[in-house]
Amino acid sequence: MRKTAGFCINNVNIATMSASSNVANVPYGIKENGSVYINAGRIEKIDDANHLSADGINVIDGQGQWLLPGLIDCHTHLVYAGNRASEFEMRQQGKSYSEIAKQGGGIQSTVNATRQASYESLLHLAKNRAARLIEEGVTTIEVKSGYGLDLETELRMLHVAKDLERTLSVNIEPTYLGAHSVPKKYRESPDEYVKFVCEQVLPEVVKQGLATSVDVFCETIGFTPAQCETVFIAAKDHGLNVKAHVEQLSDLKGAKLAAKYHALSVDHIEYLQPEDIPALAKSNTVAVVLPGAFYSLRETQLPPIAALRAHNVPMAIATDLNPGSSPIASLLTIMNMGCVLFGMTPEETLLGVTRHAAQALGLNRKGQIVTGFDADLGLWNIQHPCELSYGINQVRPSRIWVNGEER
Amino acid sequence: MRKTAGFCINNVNIATMSASSNVANVPYGIKENGSVYINAGRIEKIDDANHLSADGINVIDGQGQWLLPGLIDCHTHLVYAGNRASEFEMRQQGKSYSEIAKQGGGIQSTVNATRQASYESLLHLAKNRAARLIEEGVTTIEVKSGYGLDLETELRMLHVAKDLERTLSVNIEPTYLGAHSVPKKYRESPDEYVKFVCEQVLPEVVKQGLATSVDVFCETIGFTPAQCETVFIAAKDHGLNVKAHVEQLSDLKGAKLAAKYHALSVDHIEYLQPEDIPALAKSNTVAVVLPGAFYSLRETQLPPIAALRAHNVPMAIATDLNPGSSPIASLLTIMNMGCVLFGMTPEETLLGVTRHAAQALGLNRKGQIVTGFDADLGLWNIQHPCELSYGINQVRPSRIWVNGEER
Ligand SMILES: [Zn+2]
Ligand SMILES: [Zn+2]
Repeated sequence: MRKTAGFCINNVNIATMSASSNVANVPYGIKENGSVYINAGRIEKIDDANHLSADGINVIDGQGQWLLPGLIDCHTHLVYAGNRASEFEMRQQGKSYSEIAKQGGGIQSTVNATRQASYESLLHLAKNRAARLIEEGVTTIEVKSGYGLDLETELRMLHVAKDLERTLSVNIEPTYLGAHSVPKKYRESPDEYVKFVCEQVLPEVVKQGLATSVDVFCETIGFTPAQCETVFIAAKDHGLNVKAHVEQLSDLKGAKLAAKYHALSVDHIEYLQPEDIPALAKSNTVAVVLPGAFYSLRETQLPPIAALRAHNVPMAIATDLNPGSSPIASLLTIMNMGCVLFGMTPEETLLGVTRHAAQALGLNRKGQIVTGFDADLGLWNIQHPCELSYGINQVRPSRIWVNGEER
Repeated sequence: MRKTAGFCINNVNIATMSASSNVANVPYGIKENGSVYINAGRIEKIDDANHLSADGINVIDGQGQWLLPGLIDCHTHLVYAGNRASEFEMRQQGKSYSEIAKQGGGIQSTVNATRQASYESLLHLAKNRAARLIEEGVTTIEVKSGYGLDLETELRMLHVAKDLERTLSVNIEPTYLGAHSVPKKYRESPDEYVKFVCEQVLPEVVKQGLATSVDVFCETIGFTPAQCETVFIAAKDHGLNVKAHVEQLSDLKGAKLAAKYHALSVDHIEYLQPEDIPALAKSNTVAVVLPGAFYSLRETQLPPIAALRAHNVPMAIATDLNPGSSPIASLLTIMNMGCVLFGMTPEETLLGVTRHAAQALGLNRKGQIVTGFDADLGLWNIQHPCELSYGINQVRPSRIWVNGEER
């Protein structure tokens, strides 16, 4: 991305979300009446208002609005084709799962449609979804593969994901999720599919530099812990980070396994048991909660927020944007759900889409307004950062910068 | 509103939502491959595609997209000042209600802020909220007073509501809701306040033509059925329609009372008992469900959707947009909640924001794509109208007409 010349955003209240403010117990790392100097795409200096504006540089008047880190959606499946609205309608009409399956519902329908979709068509669809996220102030989006399950489509999905970065003003973090679902062809031999993932696809993903992390779906309807471990070992051999969908529908001890491999994050975790939380704290693994899936699936088992809080496990929150269990293209709505449905505080949900979301992606220069960090920023005409979580569809950023360039 | 010259929207799939299609059991009243001729702000003719486009009139190519009635949000409180985000944050932090009350939370804080707000400031705030609704395809918004509770502020709220129609491209239906909350001054003499509502404010509202309906909040924390009946009688004496917030937190038999006065609608109704439903069917009263408040208040008591369905009571659905119990400026999100939280079908939620919402407002020329009806229309680039309810923040109309004029 091209870097702009240096400039200063003056006269803003800053929610730095910084780790050091956390230590000092300043909520949101707030610095009122400040200014931020940006150069070469980075935050070069933070000072009081008017302190940075005297020396002839380009000055933007923040008009007393709030400057927040650009938001980070650290868990999405936004590259896919096909439409599952009719499946949703059948479900609401009380049709049985077997009736719906007969009509070709479920993840298999998305896999079929995605395999058949052209690169251009996938890119077009993904752009529309990403555009909804970025107009709310999202500057970094994680995007998983996992609707191809064959070599060609998985690579195509990851190429499309990366291409979003070129066509939209946003950072993209692609993740290889070959172990999302056992494809039809391997239904009787899932271990063979895991072998295919590790020996055929993963090396190609690495060779083409298409992902920095590898994800798995550890679940009775996904992959066993042993299969997930095989994927983790292969990923680590290639020097990639790992993360995992765990404990969404049942407790397979996926979180514990992920912690053993120093996973960046464990995601969903409704069925995570308190006794497995210390391992997460020890491995510095982020707990990513996904209230959109919880809401859409009418789940009633709540993730152990209070226990995670008590153990100082960093919590992130994300849309899980996908056509089946979370067709929700609004990170701000998800923040509200994190509060309303999961009992998180507005500060926790904002940390969950800034500092902790960055950590869940292994991005150590994003998610905070701190010297040396990337200048991914949103200016918000609000009275306090808790307003981002307070309602639904009420607030939007007035200006956005990505790597120091205004969007 | 100025009327345009005649034109034709050609090559569209039409979800007419018409009452006659309902009788004929055509879901959504769908007419595929159609065209609509609009003249003087009205729908003049509906025909097959290309049938209307030959005679020299201005033709808009709908490109095979879907034409739906403009959406109607039939229950909002969107004129107010003040911000209750900090109250929300305190609640999420586990502060007790008495602590929050001490800091000046609750409806009283909104009343205080609204009384102090200027006309211009109220209008500016309301416009921002209404803009969020209308970008999703809403063409008619009901707006209630009720945060003034004194003569001057109630009238100001209703003037602001009506003024939205002048400054935005939208139809506004203002409702006088004097009996929203007993103001501080009358805490010991609520009957005196009801007298003030009926004898001081209502005649002035009528005289200035500021509302066509009168609403009440029938609840233990609002007004007794006897007090509500007093308001109903006064409203009817003035020739106004009535509607009522009933059975939201308890069963005071407000619905039955409202049916006796042929209320246009009863709203909330989580605690409505099945035995009171036939009276609603008989009085042709619309049951308006408000899942946003249900969601935000973590209510668990579900409205009796199946029983309402069985008795053919028309169901509408609305945002209830307000700063306390439903800070949600998205009718499409509310439609999704109607499905996910209340088990409605996507067709029921679309009827709930078109034909049935029009009925809840006594608007007999809106909410359907039918000859003679107002040309409030949205063009949607979707594959089926069920997509409006399927997800959150995924779809938006590509074009909108209000009374035949493109927005
Ligand atoms: Zn996922
Ligand atoms: Zn209300």
